[in-house]
Amino acid sequence: MIEKGLFYPPDPSSRGSCFLGGNLAESAGGPRAVKYGVTKEYVLNIEMVLPTGEIIWTGANVLKNSTGYNLTQLIVGSEGTLGVITKIVFKLLPHPKKNVVMLIPFFSTEKACEAVSAVFRAGIIPSAMEFMERDAIDWAIEYTDAQPPFIPTNGGDGTPQFPPSGGVRAVAAHLLVEVDGNDMDVMMKDVERITEVMEKHECDDILFADTEEQKQNLWHLRRSIGEAVKSHSIYKEEDTVVPRAELPKLLMGVKAIGKKYGFKSVCYGHAGDGNLHVNIIKGDVSDTQWNNEIPNKAIPEIFQLCVSLKGTLSGEHGIGWVQKKYMDIAFHPKVIELQKEIKKLFDPNGIMNPGKMFI
Amino acid sequence: MIEKGLFYPPDPSSRGSCFLGGNLAESAGGPRAVKYGVTKEYVLNIEMVLPTGEIIWTGANVLKNSTGYNLTQLIVGSEGTLGVITKIVFKLLPHPKKNVVMLIPFFSTEKACEAVSAVFRAGIIPSAMEFMERDAIDWAIEYTDAQPPFIPTNGGDGTPQFPPSGGVRAVAAHLLVEVDGNDMDVMMKDVERITEVMEKHECDDILFADTEEQKQNLWHLRRSIGEAVKSHSIYKEEDTVVPRAELPKLLMGVKAIGKKYGFKSVCYGHAGDGNLHVNIIKGDVSDTQWNNEIPNKAIPEIFQLCVSLKGTLSGEHGIGWVQKKYMDIAFHPKVIELQKEIKKLFDPNGIMNPGKMFI
Repeated sequence: MIEKGLFYPPDPSSRGSCFLGGNLAESAGGPRAVKYGVTKEYVLNIEMVLPTGEIIWTGANVLKNSTGYNLTQLIVGSEGTLGVITKIVFKLLPHPKKNVVMLIPFFSTEKACEAVSAVFRAGIIPSAMEFMERDAIDWAIEYTDAQPPFIPTNGGDGTPQFPPSGGVRAVAAHLLVEVDGNDMDVMMKDVERITEVMEKHECDDILFADTEEQKQNLWHLRRSIGEAVKSHSIYKEEDTVVPRAELPKLLMGVKAIGKKYGFKSVCYGHAGDGNLHVNIIKGDVSDTQWNNEIPNKAIPEIFQLCVSLKGTLSGEHGIGWVQKKYMDIAFHPKVIELQKEIKKLFDPNGIMNPGKMFI
Repeated sequence: MIEKGLFYPPDPSSRGSCFLGGNLAESAGGPRAVKYGVTKEYVLNIEMVLPTGEIIWTGANVLKNSTGYNLTQLIVGSEGTLGVITKIVFKLLPHPKKNVVMLIPFFSTEKACEAVSAVFRAGIIPSAMEFMERDAIDWAIEYTDAQPPFIPTNGGDGTPQFPPSGGVRAVAAHLLVEVDGNDMDVMMKDVERITEVMEKHECDDILFADTEEQKQNLWHLRRSIGEAVKSHSIYKEEDTVVPRAELPKLLMGVKAIGKKYGFKSVCYGHAGDGNLHVNIIKGDVSDTQWNNEIPNKAIPEIFQLCVSLKGTLSGEHGIGWVQKKYMDIAFHPKVIELQKEIKKLFDPNGIMNPGKMFI
């Protein structure tokens, strides 16, 4: 598509292994969602095979559609429970030709989170705005092939190294920010304003990726976090999402709940969307706690916090097996009942991805 | 919202009289949809009263949500048939501060339609791209208070008048194009490229609105077309929508069907979205033809043409009473059955907007 100047924005972190059908099933996101929206925003029409045998199209190949109920968006995010997606019609955009990638270290996780919504309040929509706790980056460097960020401005020999200011251990979190577009002068105006906002929130020296390789390294570092957590530890990952401005309260709340129940968490994610991946680490937690107290008390508390902040259980991963028992935290019982009944309408014999999403 | 630098893009032509609940019920569009999308793109969460009495929220106040089926988007566009919307949570954008408005006359309606998709293929997304047949503008000027477009470049006395080149009657259609943004240099690059595309499609001299008043006049002219048709004639309005590149085929097809069945049509609409409002004019058509042949043969042919071009019945107006008998042209019988069953799930007693959307 890029050869034709066209652009399909969704870029889930699993893009090396996932398929578009799966992306639709979960309405997958990714870093660019903050500017361009998630998978659902690009799906115009779906051909699917219903569990009752019919082959249907849900809509039409058009940018606007007020013809009947929006079955297309009912299928997107339905986790394979309503039928098998066999064809997809997407909307594409003109491909932005340039980008600027910057890594912004903070000494305080809370200040980093506060800076996120301040950027949007300043009227700027970056093409990525990722939050990474210090531990998340440390683990990625320690347990995967990800490299520490380059320091492009100190005239060194280009050896990968951590930012010097304040010393390695003082940095508590980073924001990885990308601005895209076609006109570098315009983009640099946004970058200048982002820099101002970040400095007001007491960031450390900002690193700019000078080369395509440095950009790739920074993004590889970000994308390696999930793998680092998986390869290094037993964990439970939650895909919490709240209104962007509530991100500091969510992060602080997760840490407080961790303290209460005695677990460590590694948090990172699509901060610009208010979407925080919370990895609860097994570490020294006893098996009893891990299998009882954490899933039955701590995780419900995290989700109750999300809902009290007007957020919900999952921003882009879906519900599946593991989160289905928490659905009643997010929804009125009648809403769960309606969803189950819709499932039955499409799949009267319960053959599509049985047991997922609902208890 | 504008005072806070925030922007709610949907701008339906009925914005002087419509309400947001109604906008959600039809997923209303408007000229800006071509860049910013329709109502559904801005709705994050809905509070509604179900016909069974429960008060529910459909989702959460978040930019991304993969938690359960997308009931929010099932409600948007459901034409008041599933419940009463009582609260809406919208996403807002930073307000673009500047715009350029241009009116482009064409001697050929087909060339005007072809120019539309050529602009997008050139990688430009204008904030409006409206098509108006010559008759549509003539009627607006004749039957409403809309003024002919100013000619800003001829040093005249500012008296409203029609473009001189080629003479008034030679112009067959106009495109009304708006480009918005915050940086005039960048916007003017887009305007230059749009101008190049238009000239390649053999347009007449392009008129640029020099003042805010001239911009308002051009938009008032565009928005007066619907009223002009209503006040001047008995008519049937269809809200056809096809993929943008198929617009010339749709327009030519509508005219051919008109010729076949002996009716005149006035066509205009959101060309950038492939959304053409087709006003079939009663004129000299006999009552028998008007009540039988046109609704039972000609209009189905128009919709069959839309569907054969991968389009559908309605882009932004909805189905209601009048189009419900054509739903089987757009949908597989099973899809209509599923929609009717969803209606029954929400509204088992059939009390919500009864008789609408489905036969």
